[in-house]
Amino acid sequence: MSAKALIREFEAIVGAENVFSDEADLLTYSYDAAELPSQVPALAVRPQAMEQLGQVSALCNQEGLPLTVRGSGTNLSGGTIPQPDGVVLLTSALNRIREINVPDMYAVVEPGVITAQFFDAALAQGLFYPPDPGSQAVSTLGGNLAENSGGLRGLKYGVTRDYVMGLSFFDTQGNLIKTGSRTVKCATGYNLAGLMVGSEGTLGVFGEIILKLIPPPATAKAMMAMYDRAEGASETVAAIIAERILPATLEFMDNFTIRTVEDYSQVGLPVEAAAMLLIEVDGHPAQVEEEAAKIEKLCQQMGATEVKLATDAAQRDKVWEARRAAIPALARLEPSIVLEDATVPRSQIPAMIKALEEIGQEFKLTIGTFGHAGDGNLHPTIVFDKRDQEQAERVTKAVDTIFERALALCGTLSGEHGLGLRKVEFLKNEVGQASVVWSRRLKAALDPKGILNPGKVIG
Amino acid sequence: MSAKALIREFEAIVGAENVFSDEADLLTYSYDAAELPSQVPALAVRPQAMEQLGQVSALCNQEGLPLTVRGSGTNLSGGTIPQPDGVVLLTSALNRIREINVPDMYAVVEPGVITAQFFDAALAQGLFYPPDPGSQAVSTLGGNLAENSGGLRGLKYGVTRDYVMGLSFFDTQGNLIKTGSRTVKCATGYNLAGLMVGSEGTLGVFGEIILKLIPPPATAKAMMAMYDRAEGASETVAAIIAERILPATLEFMDNFTIRTVEDYSQVGLPVEAAAMLLIEVDGHPAQVEEEAAKIEKLCQQMGATEVKLATDAAQRDKVWEARRAAIPALARLEPSIVLEDATVPRSQIPAMIKALEEIGQEFKLTIGTFGHAGDGNLHPTIVFDKRDQEQAERVTKAVDTIFERALALCGTLSGEHGLGLRKVEFLKNEVGQASVVWSRRLKAALDPKGILNPGKVIG
Repeated sequence: MSAKALIREFEAIVGAENVFSDEADLLTYSYDAAELPSQVPALAVRPQAMEQLGQVSALCNQEGLPLTVRGSGTNLSGGTIPQPDGVVLLTSALNRIREINVPDMYAVVEPGVITAQFFDAALAQGLFYPPDPGSQAVSTLGGNLAENSGGLRGLKYGVTRDYVMGLSFFDTQGNLIKTGSRTVKCATGYNLAGLMVGSEGTLGVFGEIILKLIPPPATAKAMMAMYDRAEGASETVAAIIAERILPATLEFMDNFTIRTVEDYSQVGLPVEAAAMLLIEVDGHPAQVEEEAAKIEKLCQQMGATEVKLATDAAQRDKVWEARRAAIPALARLEPSIVLEDATVPRSQIPAMIKALEEIGQEFKLTIGTFGHAGDGNLHPTIVFDKRDQEQAERVTKAVDTIFERALALCGTLSGEHGLGLRKVEFLKNEVGQASVVWSRRLKAALDPKGILNPGKVIG
Repeated sequence: MSAKALIREFEAIVGAENVFSDEADLLTYSYDAAELPSQVPALAVRPQAMEQLGQVSALCNQEGLPLTVRGSGTNLSGGTIPQPDGVVLLTSALNRIREINVPDMYAVVEPGVITAQFFDAALAQGLFYPPDPGSQAVSTLGGNLAENSGGLRGLKYGVTRDYVMGLSFFDTQGNLIKTGSRTVKCATGYNLAGLMVGSEGTLGVFGEIILKLIPPPATAKAMMAMYDRAEGASETVAAIIAERILPATLEFMDNFTIRTVEDYSQVGLPVEAAAMLLIEVDGHPAQVEEEAAKIEKLCQQMGATEVKLATDAAQRDKVWEARRAAIPALARLEPSIVLEDATVPRSQIPAMIKALEEIGQEFKLTIGTFGHAGDGNLHPTIVFDKRDQEQAERVTKAVDTIFERALALCGTLSGEHGLGLRKVEFLKNEVGQASVVWSRRLKAALDPKGILNPGKVIG
């Protein structure tokens, strides 16, 4: 089919105003938040109704066109970078919250709903949606599902996968596949929702999503603890867990990140501290009081030079504002930024922090480390200038070494950002070649022409 | 290969003392806890080491022998009924808890570990494994994974799936496939563990299992509430959730079940009550006190004729002893028992209870209804004599009608028992034929000869 005829076919499905082929438009969809080369697609389409997702999928399959679904493009592993000459499917118009069912504590949403807007809508009904990826203000729920997004509350509340009760998706022939249920328990058929979450758009195009909601915690208390030794911070993390306390959030920041954040946002962080923990406990008021007191004591026992408890909502907001400022603050230091998410068992955090310091020295790079200490999911962040080719090569080698060290510590390549394009070649080092082959057989059976987001997850 | 030569091949893998071909042995493995016709396998083998799982799998595949993995055979949907002339793989010798990692709160187990023994071992280390299927005293963790078992704590704590961090399994060629991680967060590769949980032995043979553990609740409080109207009980369930309280357990029993249990165990249940709720809240002591008081008040508001709070551990044990007695008590009434688990959204429980009463009347059958009211997972239980063919046919029709009514109420065919053999034909009614076809394509790609537990889940 000629390019013009093809455009007409897509226009017949989604309407002429929802097919984009201008270079300026296409450039917008050529990259995501990962520091990877952009690739300009041939076409972008913006379906206006769920059934159009299946029609677009079927047309792409018929014509052998690579299809990449894009929410807000906040992906940090290149998962939304399209194929040259491929089609980008934009979910932005499918942004309705179809139902928030209060008595049964679930919601039904379209894939383009913004995470934070959904969180707010649920809370307005007195319900709580815990997954809170860093990009929640702009990211979509469909994107969160595709990447199995995590966030700050992972340790206590789990990740996106833990809140997906059911799902419908379109296969390459445009059929609607349903899985899961509106019930808390469901052992009916294969758990296809479990497989689809984290499959990075390589197995189907998400339609309606059923998400579990829970009662919100009655109250919360935040605090910051400063250390003149980074080890003091990781020892505190271990001590808190040993006390059988699961904080809602338990975040780490190293000295470089603290200084950068303070320079950026002037929230009054102690720029001399070697490391800092930002902690929040939530739940019943009596439990929160007790846990906060215990944690304060543990921080002091592990050598914290200062512990600041937020005494009101404004102070609590300030704690999290500091944490949320980490990425923008680091990003403005240099033209390029690589934010990694290799993850280790919690007890290996001290070893991982040490490894990151060594890697920074070995490759003469600036690595700011912060992240979710409670679940072993640190974000070592390298700031650099990718136009300096020699430096860029050192960054690549440093990141490869981060992967190696994380795996040597019984960790995993990705805690919450997915494999996308960058980490695919390392997958076999973690799970073995047989797992990769098995996964590829699965993919080939379900997408025989290989049109669904080619090259992601399993290569 | 001759039958004798084949036996020698299996003996070479697992040892002569672990291959069973006597009729008496084989009869033992011809059925499970479902009320379905038994089928005698050709052979049973009992591997002594993990790698033998892969070798048995590969030999079965080479010879085209149907392979059914069996834990303790407590399955209620026929999932462990083998094929005639097939091989049964017994996991009983692979029963080691390999590791309980306290700082990182996970455990690594072999598939044949008994659920309750694992629970106890974790608790001895100060950690909590919530899934508690009714058969936990004898069921295996491998079997729990294969069926995605639920239990009494589903509403607050989720089901087996929610505690599987990682898994290794053997494919039909005997390759070891790894997925997941020892980390709380993992977005590496496809979430194959999610797919495997609940796949009823049709996609691979489970090896090492990594399970998430959590801090145990500090305290718990149990209570019973009696009603002279069954609606009062379901209204109480709705009222508790509307208060944003998630009890650890929230169980329902109808009058028939109450009378049968009392007759069996003489624990002092009120045989005149139309229905009863058995409730337990757990967590921080202050929260438990408050929630118990609120629930007591709600029970009274919804017309409970009596609310009994357990004031000590002995009384609490008595509450749960009564609940656990439901199945054995009902089972001794008649030679045959069918225990269903069609599940509805919680708010539809009153409608489902009404439907079950109507179905009992329509088909002139005795249906005792009890189960997990908090998650909409009731267990309507039909006691009958299967030797009475006319009655058995009415039972079949009644169960078909239960499925229909549950689906009409936005429910699901199975909350926690799996589809096994009995419900396969109904799957398309719930998820649609396209989902069944997609699932079969997936299965065919991963098990081309169809040797892994044929006929289960997807037919």
